[in-house]
Amino acid sequence: MFAAVLHGPGDVRYEDVAEPALLKPTDAIIRLSATCICGSDLWPYRGLNEVGTPLRMGHEYCGVVVEVGSAVTSVTPGQFVVGSFCLSDNTCPHCRFGFQSSCEQREFMTGAQAPFARVPLADGSLVALPQHPTDDLIPSLLAASDVLGTGWYAAAAAQVRPGSTVVVVGDGAVGLMGVLAAKQMGAARIIAMSRHESRQALALEYGATDIISERGEAGITRIKTLTKGVGADSVLECVGTSESMQQAIRVTRPGGMIGYVGVPHGIQLEGQSLFFSQIGMLGGPAPVRRFLPHLLELIIERKINPGKVFDLELPLADVAQGYRAMDERRAIKTLLRV
Amino acid sequence: MFAAVLHGPGDVRYEDVAEPALLKPTDAIIRLSATCICGSDLWPYRGLNEVGTPLRMGHEYCGVVVEVGSAVTSVTPGQFVVGSFCLSDNTCPHCRFGFQSSCEQREFMTGAQAPFARVPLADGSLVALPQHPTDDLIPSLLAASDVLGTGWYAAAAAQVRPGSTVVVVGDGAVGLMGVLAAKQMGAARIIAMSRHESRQALALEYGATDIISERGEAGITRIKTLTKGVGADSVLECVGTSESMQQAIRVTRPGGMIGYVGVPHGIQLEGQSLFFSQIGMLGGPAPVRRFLPHLLELIIERKINPGKVFDLELPLADVAQGYRAMDERRAIKTLLRV
Repeated sequence: MFAAVLHGPGDVRYEDVAEPALLKPTDAIIRLSATCICGSDLWPYRGLNEVGTPLRMGHEYCGVVVEVGSAVTSVTPGQFVVGSFCLSDNTCPHCRFGFQSSCEQREFMTGAQAPFARVPLADGSLVALPQHPTDDLIPSLLAASDVLGTGWYAAAAAQVRPGSTVVVVGDGAVGLMGVLAAKQMGAARIIAMSRHESRQALALEYGATDIISERGEAGITRIKTLTKGVGADSVLECVGTSESMQQAIRVTRPGGMIGYVGVPHGIQLEGQSLFFSQIGMLGGPAPVRRFLPHLLELIIERKINPGKVFDLELPLADVAQGYRAMDERRAIKTLLRV
Repeated sequence: MFAAVLHGPGDVRYEDVAEPALLKPTDAIIRLSATCICGSDLWPYRGLNEVGTPLRMGHEYCGVVVEVGSAVTSVTPGQFVVGSFCLSDNTCPHCRFGFQSSCEQREFMTGAQAPFARVPLADGSLVALPQHPTDDLIPSLLAASDVLGTGWYAAAAAQVRPGSTVVVVGDGAVGLMGVLAAKQMGAARIIAMSRHESRQALALEYGATDIISERGEAGITRIKTLTKGVGADSVLECVGTSESMQQAIRVTRPGGMIGYVGVPHGIQLEGQSLFFSQIGMLGGPAPVRRFLPHLLELIIERKINPGKVFDLELPLADVAQGYRAMDERRAIKTLLRV
């Protein structure tokens, strides 16, 4: 089969690779209905993460089960499934606490930018739908695999509650999903920091009440003014740079929470300053599996439309073009048809 | 009057100072029933904090109101009061969220190692008792002013709940109060890290279920073994050094919370490692005022006995001796009779 392989910075190729096969009794093989490119795929694409190459890319997936290992009991061939990018057994103590992304057996999905993929820990990672979805739901179901689940976790970790004032730092796909999640959780005010017109429009559609295009000191001042000097109850940090984290810290009110889901690159936090700012923090890779059943229900009932975050759709064969569009910020998120 | 004044590292003197007077309409003057020495007083005493000297010492207090400013409405002369070491108006947004230690008007109490003291923001900082307490309750009431309230906040910030597994890092007075608080909040297991016999005994009396004398890697291994490899739900960091914070981080389970109340000295947190450990953190100076009414009730009803944390009692005239005893860890905490 042909799939996406990273050969070095800026060099993603659509090339012939071996078809996946069951390696363990807990594996499943799925035929993907669609896959996509994640903001985090851009770190190795930009040469900012050391990785061995060639590297099979892609960790977001949904599709139809074609084969399962002998130990798999919860899904069967023919079922339509969505799974988390973090693979988990969903039975260990961390999973039972709802932190499947720290599962004792955790693995990260890989090789999903392909027509077929192997899903390890299938029982703990996959959720089957009661029936096959109509085609128009595929983008939203695919989004649940990572980007929606990650934005949702950011809002949950930041303890968004009915009536909360929320700031979302970052207008990438995850930030936009954070806006959607905060809205679903009942936030009264959702301030999205964005300077790109198309992203601003989507943020408003997803429930943002205020858009701020300023950054740095100017952005902090605007938010302080909007919140009457108090700061926000909950801040979703969806970027992962030192600047974005400082922005998040400085707009959170004392006792407020930051949910941070952008993988930190070059972030150092000084203990005493964090102490006196009196800000709570919880982050990490999102335990998407915790939220999946609820998110799939919301999608099937058409109460949310996270799939709108895909503003570019390409055949998998044009995957290199999809990476370029996201790298140059011409696309928020690229869906790849397989 | 004679009071404690720091003249330089290791040099605390009992000397003649001016009696306090009302400076603002929101002030009160109190006659102290007792005062004490805080672990945080040792930072400047040891020359580890830059401070201007001579410096009037002491921020923990309880006693009888002798005079109030014209704007004070909630306490009257003759009443017995306990106040927080963090002075707050108790009406600003941060106070209403329960974070009085980040009050828009926040000041820190000072000059309380003295027979009389000025309490700014009296209405927002002081809580009056319905009647004068018997003398045996004075140590516990004094403890509520900071050390108990701080240990309590550590447990609250670490989200201790009925059934929780809790680790307390630090066997100073605050750590011991953290044990007491965790017990009151219904923790099922309270693991206290302590290598001093008298502190171990008090930790057990306050509700610790396990005592660990190991530190560093050995301490982490012991806790991991005790928790079947999972780690603790809630960890109270009551020291403030880089070593103690690392200890806290490494024994918290993913999704667990660290409540940190030791003022951080030289702590740097690396973003990516914090992210992947998936640990929640909330700290800062304790909003004691939030907890005071509840704590005073528990003390008056003799449901808790935090006053036992004072294992040395001296007249205020011997304050220098009290600092030495705590500096050399011969005393957990020194009460000063005025």
